[in-house]
Parts: sequence; structure tokens; C-alpha cells
Amino acid sequence: MTRLSTRIQTLTAGGNGWAVYYRAREMKAAGVPVLDLTIGEHDRRTDPAILEVMDASARGGNTGYAHLTGSPALRDTIAARVAARTGVPTTRDNVAVVPGGQFALFAALMAGIDPGDDVLFPDPYYTSYPGTVRSAGGRPVPVPARPEDGFQPRAADLLVACTGAARALLINSPNNPTGAVYSDAVLEGIARVARDRDLWVVSDEVYDTQCWTGPHRSLRSVPGMAERVLVAGSMSKSHAMTGSRIGWLIGPEAVIAGVSALANTTTYGPPGYIQDATLHALTLGEGFEAGVAAPFRRRRDLCLARIAGQQAVGVIPSGGAMYLMLDVRATGLSGVNFALQLLETKHVAVMPGESFGAAAAGHVRLALTLPDDDLLAALDTLLTFAQELSR
Amino acid sequence: MTRLSTRIQTLTAGGNGWAVYYRAREMKAAGVPVLDLTIGEHDRRTDPAILEVMDASARGGNTGYAHLTGSPALRDTIAARVAARTGVPTTRDNVAVVPGGQFALFAALMAGIDPGDDVLFPDPYYTSYPGTVRSAGGRPVPVPARPEDGFQPRAADLLVACTGAARALLINSPNNPTGAVYSDAVLEGIARVARDRDLWVVSDEVYDTQCWTGPHRSLRSVPGMAERVLVAGSMSKSHAMTGSRIGWLIGPEAVIAGVSALANTTTYGPPGYIQDATLHALTLGEGFEAGVAAPFRRRRDLCLARIAGQQAVGVIPSGGAMYLMLDVRATGLSGVNFALQLLETKHVAVMPGESFGAAAAGHVRLALTLPDDDLLAALDTLLTFAQELSR
Repeated sequence: MTRLSTRIQTLTAGGNGWAVYYRAREMKAAGVPVLDLTIGEHDRRTDPAILEVMDASARGGNTGYAHLTGSPALRDTIAARVAARTGVPTTRDNVAVVPGGQFALFAALMAGIDPGDDVLFPDPYYTSYPGTVRSAGGRPVPVPARPEDGFQPRAADLLVACTGAARALLINSPNNPTGAVYSDAVLEGIARVARDRDLWVVSDEVYDTQCWTGPHRSLRSVPGMAERVLVAGSMSKSHAMTGSRIGWLIGPEAVIAGVSALANTTTYGPPGYIQDATLHALTLGEGFEAGVAAPFRRRRDLCLARIAGQQAVGVIPSGGAMYLMLDVRATGLSGVNFALQLLETKHVAVMPGESFGAAAAGHVRLALTLPDDDLLAALDTLLTFAQELSR
Repeated sequence: MTRLSTRIQTLTAGGNGWAVYYRAREMKAAGVPVLDLTIGEHDRRTDPAILEVMDASARGGNTGYAHLTGSPALRDTIAARVAARTGVPTTRDNVAVVPGGQFALFAALMAGIDPGDDVLFPDPYYTSYPGTVRSAGGRPVPVPARPEDGFQPRAADLLVACTGAARALLINSPNNPTGAVYSDAVLEGIARVARDRDLWVVSDEVYDTQCWTGPHRSLRSVPGMAERVLVAGSMSKSHAMTGSRIGWLIGPEAVIAGVSALANTTTYGPPGYIQDATLHALTLGEGFEAGVAAPFRRRRDLCLARIAGQQAVGVIPSGGAMYLMLDVRATGLSGVNFALQLLETKHVAVMPGESFGAAAAGHVRLALTLPDDDLLAALDTLLTFAQELSR
């Protein structure tokens, strides 16, 4: 075989962080009753009303080549949604519909950086970020955020990490894995760094309907930032449409034109019938979206109440998203070893903090994606396990 | 706004070739009855039996995160199909299911080349090729094929164009835009060049069910080539599923592992319900596929018979795909001017050869994608127009 590209060989340098998840899947396949809190996916499926529209669209003949970056009606609807939620003027020319929020991140980096440029992001980070930066030819530069800050990044730390090669910041609020929702002060600090160093900010806002302590604030709504913020949005978390792979990128018109050119050389955009289903889903309104989000808010509150009664693990203040990050350092174990031992001995699967970067060492992430009773049973098992270790 | 990446700004350097298509779309929107032969898309929609399976899969709950590079069952089925059609041993570990044949080309280049590497391809070429090479960081190097060779590339020409930076060849047989099906001698010549210079060959075989003069021959079946040939396949043309964006890449296991890592940072793979629909479509058999291909064979024969009766335009021998390439040099017009004048004065839209590279100058491409009567009416108009110009 001839030589693979250096890029593809180094895409997952440092591992992809999913070892515990794969082990849990193996055990489940072997019949072990694992309570699995590894995956950020709802315990419900896509609403039949959305699927009905998809089927009608497909049977109605919308099975041919579709608009590369979304139908005009869909782009208009998303633009209006974004404008209403952020107060920032937004038209269809600021919207590219793409096959999933992950592709929106990739497309934003393809448009914003060139090979060899640095992309900074707070650590802990979602597992795909380093590989996504590398896919676009960039160098991933994680910048530690601190557990004692609730994993909110400090502008001063970002500034120190900005060398001349820095071209973009990649942020995510509400945050996966930590549940942190960036405060106004943090968002404004990030904006200052971006302006000072003339950086793009790719803002991953796919959890924007899962904010527990106030309305979502988009970095794009910080005055003067619309020209340098590229927002990744998605139907996955807001509408329980993870498998349909549909999302969007919001940005300046020239970026969107570039993403259209990129679509022409990569995906040709999402299927037309999925675009039609999405258009319908977006008309279901805030009540529908609140219903999709409600279990995660309720489970977060249930878990926090349960955690409050013990000292063996700490908890990171969670303002949003479908996760809780627990501090297990008092057990003396790394996050990886805690997760592996918990899985092997107690059949509860959680993600080690180390899967999300060095800053989350000694932590584990719980996805709040099991029915309440199962979730609380898993949490109780975890807490008992931690207490035994801490004695 | 901060600076866009050089890459995204140069993605469509030289234009994207679709000016005549966009003009035709404008005229149709304004109510002009244009006979449109620009687009390679069937004049039928996806079969309802396939859509029924898709709907059942989605309603049955397959709406969550799916297998990144295809379900095991789908990968097994595609592997068996490829093995049966080529005689080359193929397992699921040689198959990555991806969102469309276009993405398969992009993924193959991401896995095979690094930024700055040359990718050679015969000219005329499908319009997306230069941008796809640039998206993967490569330098597109078109190598002229000749009308007098029926646009089959010569190995000697490829060899001359191979500098030290050459890392991959990109070929397409049956060919869009020319309809050429590469002869065994041409395939073996390409194989020799690839072996001599240690190149990958990305072989775009999405028209493999549209061969009119014999069975399809995959470059991967040339002895010793399976280790360096990456085949892009798709359901678009074979099963009239263009809009569902599903295809695959066939290659060595290490390449497929790399494409899986790439999927993790870009698309997360095709929706599970589309994977299920595809699995069903692949069981419909050769009769179904022959039925999808039949109109193009019939229309090619009808058109060739009509063209045989005149001297104003020449025709490139077409062995496959849904196109005919006509030589209009006797009219004294470029392909672009011929196409533009034909559209404006006679309301027939064809693609200028120049959209597909310098080698196709003075030609136009007909997509055989209108019902027979409309197609022949459009062809008659074109021939009369050419005769008037040639007088």
C-alpha cells in the first residue's frame, strides 16, 4: 500500500477518548446490564410528526439534488430564528444549512483558517475538536480552564496562548462536557481577545435550547462581533434529531458563500426531504423545544439534590446541556481509572474527564440520558463506589 | 470582517462552470420554456419501495446516532456487491459508507494526499474535481485527453505531467462529461503510471451501472492495484437516489480506518434510516438497476442515429453514463458561445465543454435526462442551429 497522508494518520493523535464507551458497548453486547451514561443522546426518538413530513416530502418527489446550502424557505426560517433569539440582523445570506453541527464546525474552520494556523479552545473540550482542527489543516491548542472557575475560560489565559499563528478560537456554551454556561463577563473577555488579535471565533451553540439559569446568550450578539463569529447550530439536541444530521452555520455573507463552494466539493448539502422535515420541526415552537429539553433540566436538579448529601465527589456548577461533570479527585483515582473500575465492577458507564482534555483530569462526565430512575440508581452506585474509595 | 482562508477563497478559482445552467434556471423561473439538458439527474424520482423502507426505519426508531461509516449489514452487502462485480476480495473493512459519492472523493483525497501535493486528472473532468482537490489541500493538475482519442487519456501524457509532487491520480470511467468508458489498455496504462510513481488512484465509478458496450471494469480489478486504488461508489446514478446523498469508498483497511476518523470530525456519517433504505435498494437486483439505466442507453442510441444523418456537429464515441459530448468546432463558435446562443435564441440548454476543462473547448455536453421526445426535439433544434452556423 502506498503512504497515507500525514494528516489522516494524525487525525486522532492522542486517542479519540472513547475507550470506556467502546468497552461499555462490548459488555452490553455480551449481555451485561450496563447503565450507560456515556452518550449525549436523548432517551426519546425523533417526533413522528417530523418524520411524517419527511416521508410526505420524499414521496412527493423531493428526492433529487437539493439546494446545496438549504432551501430558501429553510434558510429564511433559520435566519428569522437566529435574529429573534439574538437580536442580531440575520438574513438567508448569513445561513448555510449543512449535514450536522459537526460539519458546521468543520466548514467554519475550512473557511477561516489555512494549514498551519493555530486554533485555540478551552480545555475541557468536546472530543472531536482536536481532530476537527486537524482535518482543516490547523494545529489544535487547548487552553486549560480551571475546575475552581467552574471550567469557565479566562481571557488572560487565552491571550497568553495566542502566538502569531493563532487564527481562531473555538468555544462551546452551553458546554459539553462540563455543562458550563459562559457568563457575560467571560463572553466579553473572549470577544476582547478575538478583536485584539483579529481572530475568528467559531461558537458551537448546539445546546442553546438547554440553558437552566437564564436565556441563552450567543457570542454573536456581543456588539461588533457578528463580523467575526461563526455560529454552529443544529437540530440534534433541540429537536431530538441527532441521526438526521442537519445543522447550520451562521456568519458573514462571504463565509457562507465559501461554505457553499465547500458543499459543492464535499457533501452537496443535506437531503431535500430532511430539509423539509427540519422546516416543519422549526414551526413546532418553543413549547416543543422546552419539552425536549425538560428531562435534562429535571434530571440535573434531581442529581444535584442527591449529590448535595455527600462529600465523596464534587460537582461542577452546571448551567446547561445534558451533562454533569463530577470531581472524583478525592477518591485518589484518575477519571479514567475511576470510570473503568466503575464500569467493570458496578456496571455503570461514565466518560472519564481525560477524554475531554488534561484540564478535566480526575473528573467524570455523566450524560443525563437515562430515564430518571435508572439515572438515579446509576448515580447512587457511583456515589457509593466513590465513598468506599475515599474512606 | 477578518480574513477568509486562502483555501476557501481559491476553491472555485477559474469559476465553477455552471453559468449556462444558472442562466437556464433564471429563464425557466421567468416562464421561458427551456429544454434543459444541463443536469445529470434522472427524469424519475426515487422508487417508492425504497422510500417505504426508509420511513419504516425512521418510525421504527432508527433516528439516533448511526454507525459512522455504515451499519455492519450495509458494509457487508456493499463489500459482497463489489467483490461480485470485480472479482477482488472485499470485506466490510474495505468499505466506508459516506454521505454521497462526492464525499467519497473528498475523503479519499484527505486520506491519500497532504497539503501541497499534486493530483492529476484527465481533462475534460467533472466540474467539482479542481475544487475537491483544493479542499483537501492539493494542487489540481488537469492532463489533456484528446478528442481524437475519444477523450481517453494517454499514459504517456500522465507520466510527463507527474512531477515529484504528484501523489494521486483521479479518474472517472464511465466518464462525466464525455461518456467515455476507458479501454482495458487505458486502464492498464494508468495502473502502470500509478505503480511506477507510487501514486494513489482515486477511481470515480459512480456510473458503473451505465455501461453500454460491455461489463464495467473497475481499475481496482487490475492485478496488484487493490492496494492503491480508492473507488468512489454511489446510489445516486444506479438507483436514482441523487438527493439521499449516500455512497461509499472502497480501499485498503488503513484508508477506511482513516475515513472513519474523518467522519468523526466532519459528517458523523449518513442517517441510519437512509442506510436502511440503501440496504433494501441493494437487494432490488440487477433488473431494477438495468431499468434505471435503460432510458439513457435508449436515448443515446436515438441521439446517435439522429446525429449520424448530418455533418454540422461531430460526436464523441460514448460507451456509458448519461451524457453525449458533441463537437461543435465546425460552427466556428466556442462551446461557451454555442451554448449561450443556443439557450438565448432557441431555448435549449446544454453545458459548454469549457465547463469541464480546456480539452473540451469547442464541445457541448448533453445530459440525456429529458423524456425521449423532448430530448430529440432539443437535439433537432441544436443540429439545425449548428447547420445554420456552419453554412
